[in-house]
Amino acid sequence: MEFLELLLKWVEILGTAAFAASGAMVAIERGTDLFGVLFLGIVTALGGGTLRDILLGEFPPRMFYSYSYLCIAAATALIVFIAAGALSKKYHEKYDLINKICNYFDALGLAVFSVTGVTYAIRAGFFDNPFLCVFLGMTTGIGGGVLRDMMTGAVPFVLKKRIYAVAAIVGSLLYWVLLRVSLSQFSSMGISVAVVFLIRVLATQFCWDLPKIEEHTS
Amino acid sequence: MEFLELLLKWVEILGTAAFAASGAMVAIERGTDLFGVLFLGIVTALGGGTLRDILLGEFPPRMFYSYSYLCIAAATALIVFIAAGALSKKYHEKYDLINKICNYFDALGLAVFSVTGVTYAIRAGFFDNPFLCVFLGMTTGIGGGVLRDMMTGAVPFVLKKRIYAVAAIVGSLLYWVLLRVSLSQFSSMGISVAVVFLIRVLATQFCWDLPKIEEHTS
Amino acid sequence: MEFLELLLKWVEILGTAAFAASGAMVAIERGTDLFGVLFLGIVTALGGGTLRDILLGEFPPRMFYSYSYLCIAAATALIVFIAAGALSKKYHEKYDLINKICNYFDALGLAVFSVTGVTYAIRAGFFDNPFLCVFLGMTTGIGGGVLRDMMTGAVPFVLKKRIYAVAAIVGSLLYWVLLRVSLSQFSSMGISVAVVFLIRVLATQFCWDLPKIEEHTS
Repeated sequence: MEFLELLLKWVEILGTAAFAASGAMVAIERGTDLFGVLFLGIVTALGGGTLRDILLGEFPPRMFYSYSYLCIAAATALIVFIAAGALSKKYHEKYDLINKICNYFDALGLAVFSVTGVTYAIRAGFFDNPFLCVFLGMTTGIGGGVLRDMMTGAVPFVLKKRIYAVAAIVGSLLYWVLLRVSLSQFSSMGISVAVVFLIRVLATQFCWDLPKIEEHTS
Repeated sequence: MEFLELLLKWVEILGTAAFAASGAMVAIERGTDLFGVLFLGIVTALGGGTLRDILLGEFPPRMFYSYSYLCIAAATALIVFIAAGALSKKYHEKYDLINKICNYFDALGLAVFSVTGVTYAIRAGFFDNPFLCVFLGMTTGIGGGVLRDMMTGAVPFVLKKRIYAVAAIVGSLLYWVLLRVSLSQFSSMGISVAVVFLIRVLATQFCWDLPKIEEHTS
Repeated sequence: MEFLELLLKWVEILGTAAFAASGAMVAIERGTDLFGVLFLGIVTALGGGTLRDILLGEFPPRMFYSYSYLCIAAATALIVFIAAGALSKKYHEKYDLINKICNYFDALGLAVFSVTGVTYAIRAGFFDNPFLCVFLGMTTGIGGGVLRDMMTGAVPFVLKKRIYAVAAIVGSLLYWVLLRVSLSQFSSMGISVAVVFLIRVLATQFCWDLPKIEEHTS
């Protein structure tokens, strides 16, 4: 069990860093300054968990206590900023590659954040409310990205492409069900995280999208 | 009294559906996928009440308990999505007609949501704070639409056209005043709902707008 | 001490008015109606403090009790609206001058709001959490402007230019440190407010910006 906790911790750190990197990359694209890069990195990494804590009525939100995640998010955003400045044109040439690598971490982050979201909802005493558990799992997973997009005036990515939120919902629901049928937390977590990760990687690889009304501009 | 409760319930259901439809229609226009349509439909329908609950400090917000409204919002958004896909070009031809019908329901929803917002604020013990009651009435009425527009990167409709928020404010204030002078809840509710509905329908019909500085692009 | 309280009160009133004016001016530029101008003015002036109260878990937020600030914000926004209408073309010619005057008040507002944000965080019992104190100082200072920009679909100004949020952070941190080393509240407040104000005025005067990745569109 201790091994799981440790593993989860490390995966959560990777996820935080990946989310922060995605926020920082969007900020750079939008032409913000260094503060904007750090701010959007932190909002993307910690926003989902903060929204979850607000909806659970837990104040002040956890981000004010777990400095480690804050520092990881800020450091990652700073590294992205420095790297983008140092690489300059190369940053833009390698953008697709960097983005691809980030995507794997992001998938891991989404998977872990969704599961931890459900865990916190259960700890707050809402195991009997599957809708709340799944909704807060999803919120923890996608909330940071939605805030990032709202702050940069874009239609949230999550509403448009690649089975993103649905992966978080599937994983959160699966985790809740597995716990409900009394599978161990270890196995439930491992399976759910793996499923979300796989869905996201496959969806990106094969460009899976949900159905969409295409004729809307005709 | 029981008749009023029942009537109100049904009108609230109609309002929820109308708000969800407006969210779904905006989502389709913005080119989101099926999840985006459902998500924006739900946010538009339940967002105002959730903001109200957050400002009242009631956690978790009511949307996590009143599944019926959630289901109605999701079902409506799904129907809009399917209809838009099935009608395809016809959807765009009939868009104005559909929009017009939605507008009536939306006016009803705005009216009922404003009044229920005031009711919840009073129940939470703030009858003596008219500003809070009216503000939360307005928030319940317009909050979902504002979130919808913020999420799609648009200047909120409510800030631009057709006596929308003002209708919610007038209705909320009227309801508070009528209760204050000890009119029965039945009559207060009926009168306030009717007034908001009328203002909105007339404002849409005759294109009433609040004053605006026109020269701003000169 | 009483003199400080009184002075602070007046400066806070000036700051509220300046923030409301900036919200109203953005609203007019974006073509909102009278309600939009009032609404954005109020959101810009009171939004930061309301976000701070939500993150502190204090419900309902203070804006529902301190009517005076609400009235000042609404009155200022109304005056801007009337003036913009009356001056018409002259409003646009004098826009730069008006903006410059507003900027000084805005700098004062930012300074005072940051310091009061820290004060409220300390009063809520979080003196031992410097990150929370500084974050809530910054939130109180910049939150209204961020909400204003999110509602008008723009990338928040604060992420882009002129050492804005950083000034709030520096001032909040300085205030916390000065209180920590047991300087009197009077002196701590005076020094911190002066520092934020100076940074902002100088940053505007000399167009100081934080570093930025310039090549992002190449």
